[in-house]
Amino acid sequence: MTRIRVELTGAAALPYDVVVQAGSLRELGSIAPLVAPAHRYAVITDDIVARHWAEPLLDGLASAGLAATLLSFAAGETSKTRETWAELTDQMLGKGLGRDTTVIALGGGVVGDVAGFVAATYMRGVPLIQVPTTLLAMIDASIGGKTGVDAPAGKNLIGAFHQPSIVVIDPEVLMTLPADQLRGGLAEAVKHGAIADRAYFEWILEVADELLAGDTALLGALIDGSVRIKAAVVSADPREEGQRAALNFGHTIGHAIERALDYGLHHGHAVALGMIAEAEIGERAGITAQQTRDRLSQAIETLNLPLRVPAGLNAGQVQELVRLDKKARLGVARYSLISEIGKIAYADRSWTFPIEDHLVVEALRTIL
Amino acid sequence: MTRIRVELTGAAALPYDVVVQAGSLRELGSIAPLVAPAHRYAVITDDIVARHWAEPLLDGLASAGLAATLLSFAAGETSKTRETWAELTDQMLGKGLGRDTTVIALGGGVVGDVAGFVAATYMRGVPLIQVPTTLLAMIDASIGGKTGVDAPAGKNLIGAFHQPSIVVIDPEVLMTLPADQLRGGLAEAVKHGAIADRAYFEWILEVADELLAGDTALLGALIDGSVRIKAAVVSADPREEGQRAALNFGHTIGHAIERALDYGLHHGHAVALGMIAEAEIGERAGITAQQTRDRLSQAIETLNLPLRVPAGLNAGQVQELVRLDKKARLGVARYSLISEIGKIAYADRSWTFPIEDHLVVEALRTIL
Repeated sequence: MTRIRVELTGAAALPYDVVVQAGSLRELGSIAPLVAPAHRYAVITDDIVARHWAEPLLDGLASAGLAATLLSFAAGETSKTRETWAELTDQMLGKGLGRDTTVIALGGGVVGDVAGFVAATYMRGVPLIQVPTTLLAMIDASIGGKTGVDAPAGKNLIGAFHQPSIVVIDPEVLMTLPADQLRGGLAEAVKHGAIADRAYFEWILEVADELLAGDTALLGALIDGSVRIKAAVVSADPREEGQRAALNFGHTIGHAIERALDYGLHHGHAVALGMIAEAEIGERAGITAQQTRDRLSQAIETLNLPLRVPAGLNAGQVQELVRLDKKARLGVARYSLISEIGKIAYADRSWTFPIEDHLVVEALRTIL
Repeated sequence: MTRIRVELTGAAALPYDVVVQAGSLRELGSIAPLVAPAHRYAVITDDIVARHWAEPLLDGLASAGLAATLLSFAAGETSKTRETWAELTDQMLGKGLGRDTTVIALGGGVVGDVAGFVAATYMRGVPLIQVPTTLLAMIDASIGGKTGVDAPAGKNLIGAFHQPSIVVIDPEVLMTLPADQLRGGLAEAVKHGAIADRAYFEWILEVADELLAGDTALLGALIDGSVRIKAAVVSADPREEGQRAALNFGHTIGHAIERALDYGLHHGHAVALGMIAEAEIGERAGITAQQTRDRLSQAIETLNLPLRVPAGLNAGQVQELVRLDKKARLGVARYSLISEIGKIAYADRSWTFPIEDHLVVEALRTIL
């Protein structure tokens, strides 16, 4: 078992652990009461995850004598709305759940974000336990307290910071994960290497074939490596006021692509494309070392991830969506860039960079 | 000018000031950039307050060279919904407001709660300035960071803690406040005296006639006295994990009455009734000194506030609604009670008390 501490310097919330342990999903009954005791547990999941993992989790809670209620919604990014959030909270109110409830988010990034936002806003906030079931959620979304839903205007525009009491990662859960979702998760791991650790980046590519084949031991090691990077960045900057912006590398363009394709592309795949475009932007702006974009493209190809946006999008459409990005300041979109593989760029006392439109449009041509 | 500090022991947010100053609403342009600098200010208000106070506030911002956008919704508790909140956030997204926006809540308790919840959840949280325009909001709702909306199941069931950067109180604004709303605010001031300061309680009753007549100097002194009590309680317990529960005296029953009457009764008037019923509950349970209910009833009568619920409600209806109260724990509603005028009750290491149903029903008869 691995236990990694998220410290949250200067923030409101208490420190918490990320536990990586095979079989931990079935043992939640012994973990939950220690970190988030509750009168009742509200397990929020989606209909696909529910089929595989709701029963073992609920059995574990029941055998520990804990009262639990299961709530589920239709799987997919299109469910990540204020409407789903409102329905879940109304269901909880209807069941008479009080302020002494703990929410357990069982699922991928969408479930974690929506259930997290429910926990953040139910009776002004109740405790939250994250039990991520996708590789992407394990190494990224479940850690750091970002919660929220999408709006018609864009992704993640409504939400709150609400740190979990614990993140419980059971790598055995990955055995039911579809291959394209596994690859999407690997894209975020590549991002962790690209922003913080060149050796980790190179290691992923060395063992890429085994990872893609679902090697449990290597996936466990990957989760461990990525969680350490993510936890370190979040600990240093819990509310994304500075260096946490590093985690957004590939995400300004990535989010715009997802939105332009109506979320028909997996988040990790969009981020892979975003990283290529943003490395190109960085090279053109003189911020990123030459050949970085080539190295990233090779890595993404090695993981069988797309090098081009699938449908026929034009640069103008993506550009327009970038302007609505949350990271925009003074009305100008800002980019988290790397100076080289393994190192986030930092200049003029800022972790993000305003980029002229024509550079963005030129860079977008490399992936369109 | 009075400046009262809210310290927020052990909490996430920074300390902030409550400023009480005649004319301060028109001077927001010089105050806002110091405590909550922003690319744009989103002024959220309701259609009634907008008529009187939007222009002077916006003029003040404009003359300081600050960019501001006005958003307003229909006045009243029935607007305090997730729908209003969703519309406001969509309007802000539509206007392209980024994370570098500060929300200014201009209005009474409903505006403060809804606009506060917008600030708490817009792009995972933006700064908030409270500019309360009712006596109730000045001395209660604007201080302490409680934000949120109602759900079909009850009041304030959805929300978040989001502390303002500053609370700006301009007593001159009270000149446009209807008399029944002024009386409602005075009920909350009586509550402050009842839970924390007997001398303050007695002073209110001595000067009751002048307060009811709108004496500006005395209303200023009242705001000052109540803000000090509220700020002290909130500072000691920002997230209502202990003694902040004191502020809920009169509110468990008060909220249930409001809900039963579909919010047709002013919050302060409902709290006045709630205080009488909860003093009776306390006396019957042996927690509150005898004759406390009588003294409270006299005080409420002196302020021309109701001693009986106006419409024909029965105790069972109120009782049922109490069960859904946020303060319920282990499925049992809990009450914040006083031991005598000026002193909150504390026993068994708790600031709230579970009360047997039959005692509640008997106590309700005194106000029905």
